[in-house]
Parts: sequence; structure tokens; C-alpha cells
Amino acid sequence: MTKLKNDTFLRALLKEPVPYTPIWIMRQAGRYLPEYNQTRARAGDFLSLCKNPDFATEVTLQPLARFGLDAAILFSDILTIPDAMGLGLYFSTGEGPKFERPLREEWAIRDLSAPDPEEHLGYVLDAVKQIRKALDGSVPLIGFSGSPFTLACYMIEGGGSDDFRTTKTMLYQRPDLLHHILQVTAKAVIDYLNAQIRAGAQAVQIFDTWGGMLSSSAYEEFSLAYLRQIVQGLIKEHDGQRIPSIVFTKGGGVWLDKIAAIGCDAVGLDWMCSIGQARGRVGDKVALQGNMDPMVLFSDPKTIRQEVRRILESYGQGSGHVFNLGHGVSQFTPPENVAALVDAVHELSTGFH
Amino acid sequence: MTKLKNDTFLRALLKEPVPYTPIWIMRQAGRYLPEYNQTRARAGDFLSLCKNPDFATEVTLQPLARFGLDAAILFSDILTIPDAMGLGLYFSTGEGPKFERPLREEWAIRDLSAPDPEEHLGYVLDAVKQIRKALDGSVPLIGFSGSPFTLACYMIEGGGSDDFRTTKTMLYQRPDLLHHILQVTAKAVIDYLNAQIRAGAQAVQIFDTWGGMLSSSAYEEFSLAYLRQIVQGLIKEHDGQRIPSIVFTKGGGVWLDKIAAIGCDAVGLDWMCSIGQARGRVGDKVALQGNMDPMVLFSDPKTIRQEVRRILESYGQGSGHVFNLGHGVSQFTPPENVAALVDAVHELSTGFH
Repeated sequence: MTKLKNDTFLRALLKEPVPYTPIWIMRQAGRYLPEYNQTRARAGDFLSLCKNPDFATEVTLQPLARFGLDAAILFSDILTIPDAMGLGLYFSTGEGPKFERPLREEWAIRDLSAPDPEEHLGYVLDAVKQIRKALDGSVPLIGFSGSPFTLACYMIEGGGSDDFRTTKTMLYQRPDLLHHILQVTAKAVIDYLNAQIRAGAQAVQIFDTWGGMLSSSAYEEFSLAYLRQIVQGLIKEHDGQRIPSIVFTKGGGVWLDKIAAIGCDAVGLDWMCSIGQARGRVGDKVALQGNMDPMVLFSDPKTIRQEVRRILESYGQGSGHVFNLGHGVSQFTPPENVAALVDAVHELSTGFH
Repeated sequence: MTKLKNDTFLRALLKEPVPYTPIWIMRQAGRYLPEYNQTRARAGDFLSLCKNPDFATEVTLQPLARFGLDAAILFSDILTIPDAMGLGLYFSTGEGPKFERPLREEWAIRDLSAPDPEEHLGYVLDAVKQIRKALDGSVPLIGFSGSPFTLACYMIEGGGSDDFRTTKTMLYQRPDLLHHILQVTAKAVIDYLNAQIRAGAQAVQIFDTWGGMLSSSAYEEFSLAYLRQIVQGLIKEHDGQRIPSIVFTKGGGVWLDKIAAIGCDAVGLDWMCSIGQARGRVGDKVALQGNMDPMVLFSDPKTIRQEVRRILESYGQGSGHVFNLGHGVSQFTPPENVAALVDAVHELSTGFH
């Protein structure tokens, strides 16, 4: 393996000493960048962008060319697994992701099986390999997947939802069926992330976007239990390197201590929790990633700097903090404010190490 | 004052002994009831329903005729205050509330003043009086208002929003302007709730629907500080009776101890927190209201009963619990499941008192 020129991100996840707090940004390759929109236009549509390793590599690298980010994240969609399961992913303008065949009938649920990533998600693995080559050891590459519960929500609803009524009706009326979906999906996520690791991903993040919509007890039973399975099923070392895992439940602030106990290396925080209090609650168990409100990027460099300082001070001295937003960057964000953010984190954080 | 036939709700809010756990349901007078939809059709539209005390009285009483609820809540809209401030509230089909004149310009913000409730919100006070008369001492009547931050969100955005970008841009770029709006609105809320109390409201709830979208520090500065002002400005006793106050911040689970410290009698919980852990955190300071996931009502009486038992057990023995959903009841809820919920709470809770 080529030695990484910048391994700050990986070291911070493992709570090893670092000279400054590393930063990457959820959805850093996205619509707020004009060059991304140009590539997307060339690709034709979002799915073609995801499914073509050349395009995926191109957009993955775009934010790194602009900003001094400390990690790259694979450009892909969180719904590749259900698509590979045969649900027929498509995007309708202005409405987000949809499935042609939502998962509702018992026979279809019983028929569900975890796709072989090599066979059905080869385009993702090719992208990982190609991005690693293009990065040439500059910064580490993060692989990712949606959580089983989050994937199940989309699969059952057939798209996004305000209240996840169909999913929750199944949860409360036929928990056996939902558990079956989650079981199969958890296996699929383990296989998928391990394939990404073998292809070159140097850390992985599991996005539990909708787990925070569950009641406390339902979260433990229907989301956290499967996150634990995944973390325990992940390859821990590859090519002589530790592969850290990050678990991010949006809206999971009330359950941080429980998330920190499943064996992951880091916990992602949304912007609603205080990172200082979160650190107090999880102790030395895990690193923390986050947690600026993405809307701060609609202010100005001075305000951004103040918020960065506030978050760094709240976390306090020492390693174990990866700076990030508490949610994906908004498509309307001025790119120059992202530059101000990255610079502020790098400059101000040296005082905390 | 006529003595209340059923004062369980008020006693539970004050943590006085009760024979069973009282229950009411957020949005209990709403679209899931066919009789509500009939009245609404007769009224013509939603705003005419709100602004006519006869109709408001009629729909307030409808759920009480069906279910053994322990409190009535004034039927009204949370945006009556901004409407009285002159922003021009209207409802466009399928899009929720909108304002003709969103609050964006500095001169308009400087011009803002708290409306005199007697003069500009008389229709609400008339409804309160008429409902009290119609209730005839059967159960207490809850008055309510939106929180200053929640009202400000709607006023600034001009309607609902996914990310409250305009509001948060003001928050981070011109905090002085947002504080001015919140200051005026807090005064308006105090005047409005006190007028409701004088008209006959026997408890009040403040709905902080959007406070949970703020970062931890912004929540304290821009929402909680004004909730505290309001709670401190409320009439504590009227007609010889204590008037308890309930503060409900949706998504506020991480800040429960802070909310419990502002002087309110009870804290409303969404369904994501564990009511048992919440009780552990707030101790004897306040009563707790909540917190079943509204989606449980899409299951069946047996499952509803199990969830009720789980929540009652989680809260544990003793007074200080008002049962409720963690959010408004969905318009698609089968009314017979609401009946099952109310009965389950009454039956199962006797064992906890």
C-alpha cells in the first residue's frame, strides 16, 4: 500500500494524536458545485452519474481540487443495494428517489435476498478502485452504505415519506416481516461494505438517516440491533491498515451512549446535539464526527469562523474529533463559504492539539 | 367557578395524586374524524372554521363525544398571532399555511408590534368562552399558542420549510433582527395566552414545533430564552385555580433538563425519547406529557394496548404523567383505534396510581 500523505482523518477516528482537526463534508461532491452540475449534465441524469465509474471518480475528486479536505467520500447513492435487489430505482424530478416495485407483499419480502456485490454492484467497486488510483495516496477514501432501517424505509414506502406510515404500520403490525427485511438487508450491507473495503475504501460510514424517526424502544430493536450486526461483521483490517467505521443516526442525539456501545470507532452527530455534552456521554469509547448546522454556510466567513471556534471549544482538547456538518451540505450553499469553513477548521484547531 | 367533574388532567400536571393517568391527544379535533370534516365543509374552509366561535366550539367538542378524553383543547390555528400582526394568513390546498406578506425587510421587522388580543383576536377569546360554557365543567379546557421561534419561522419563511434557510440565514447573519421579532412575538404570546386564561382556559400549552431544528446553543438563545419569558409572564392563578403550563419542543429530547428548568409545570415529549429516562433526567421538577408514536394508531387494539403498557411502565408509579401522542394524530388514523388507546390508558394506568 502507498503510504497516505494525509492520514489525519484516519488517525482522528482512532483517537491517535493529530496536528489539527481533520474535516470532510457530507455530500461534499454535490449540486452546490458548478463543476458537479456540469458533469451531471454530461452524464445525462443522476443514476448514470452514479453508475459510471469515470463520472463517479470525476465528481468525487471535484471538492478536493477546490478545498483542503482531509478525506474523499465515494460518490454514489444510498439506494444502490435495493436497486441491486431488483426494486427498480429511479429518480423523478423534484420528488427524489422512487422504486418501481416497493416492497409490500409478503411473498416479495420472503423472496428478498442479499445481492452479491461483485456481480450486482460492480460499478460501485470499480468506482472505488478508480478513485483510489486517482487519489494517489493524497487523502483516504470513505466508503458508505445506508443503514438497514433507512434502506427498508425507502424500500417499503417506495420513496421518501413524511411519516413513514407504511413502514411503521408493518413495524407495529407485522414486526416479523420487517425483521426479515432488515436481516436480509443487514447481510447485504455487510457484504457491500466489505467489498468496498477490499476494493480500497479506507474507512466506512453507515448513514442511518431515518432511525431518528423511531421511538426509543423501536430504535433499539429495528435500527440499532442491525447497525451492531454490521459493525461486528465488517472487515477490521485490510492491506495492513485498520478500517475505522462511523455510524451516523440523524436525530440520534438521545441515544448516543447506546450507539457508542455497538463497537463502531466513531459516532456521527447531527447539529442539534452539543458535541461537548456528547463527548461527556460517550467518554473515550468512540471518536465524534460533526456537527455544524449546514445553514451556518449561508452566513459569512466571520460567522462561520465563530461557529467553528464554538464547536472546537465545545469538543475541547485532544484527538477524536472529525469536523463535519451535522447533515449534507445544502445545494444552495455558496462554495466560497465552504472554503472559509475548511480553512477555519484547519487554522483554529491547531490550538486544540 | 363551577367545580370540574373531571380534574385528573390538571392534578396530574401539578403532580397531585390521581386515580388513573389522564389522556388527551394533540390535534384530537381534526381530519381523522368524519364529523370534523363535515363541519369544515359547512364552514367552507379551514380559516373560516377557526374564526367562527360556533364552529370552533362544535369541533372542539366532537372528540369528547366519542372518546373519554380528560381534557378539551381549544380548536384554533397556531398562526393566529402573525395573522393578527397583519401578515395575511391563508391556506393553499396541499401546501399548508402561507403568509401573503412574509417578514423579510428590516423596516417591516422594526414596524412589528404585539397585537391586542381583545381587539384583534376576539374570535379566539369568544371561542374559549363558548367552549367553556358548552363543556359545563365536564373536563378542563387547554388554551395554546405557538412558540416565538416557531411563529418567527413561519413569518420569515412565509410558510413551511424543509431547512428554514431564510430564518437561519437571518439567525446567523442578523441575529439582532431575529431577536427583535422574537421579543415582539414573545410579548404577543404572553398577552394572547393570558387573554385565553382570563376567557376561561384552565391550562396552556406552548407548541415549539421548530425549536428542535436549531443547534444546541442556538436553541437556548433563540427559542428557550423566549419560552422562559413566556412561562414567567403567564398568569399563575385565575378564578382561584392554578393554571398549569406545558412546554412542548418537538425534537427537544436532548434539552429536556434545560426545558424543565424554565418554570413550566410540564414538559411535552415527542415519541423519540424514552419517558422513563426523561423522568430520570427531570426528576420531580415537572410533570411529563406524552409520548406514543402516532403511527402506533395504524396497528390494532392489541398492539396499541401493548405500547400503552410499555409507556406507562417506562414512566412508572405515581402522578405527574399526562398520556398523549408524541405529535398530532395523523389525519388517516382510524377513529376506533383512538377509542382503543383512550380505553387502554384508563384501564391499564390504575395499576400505577
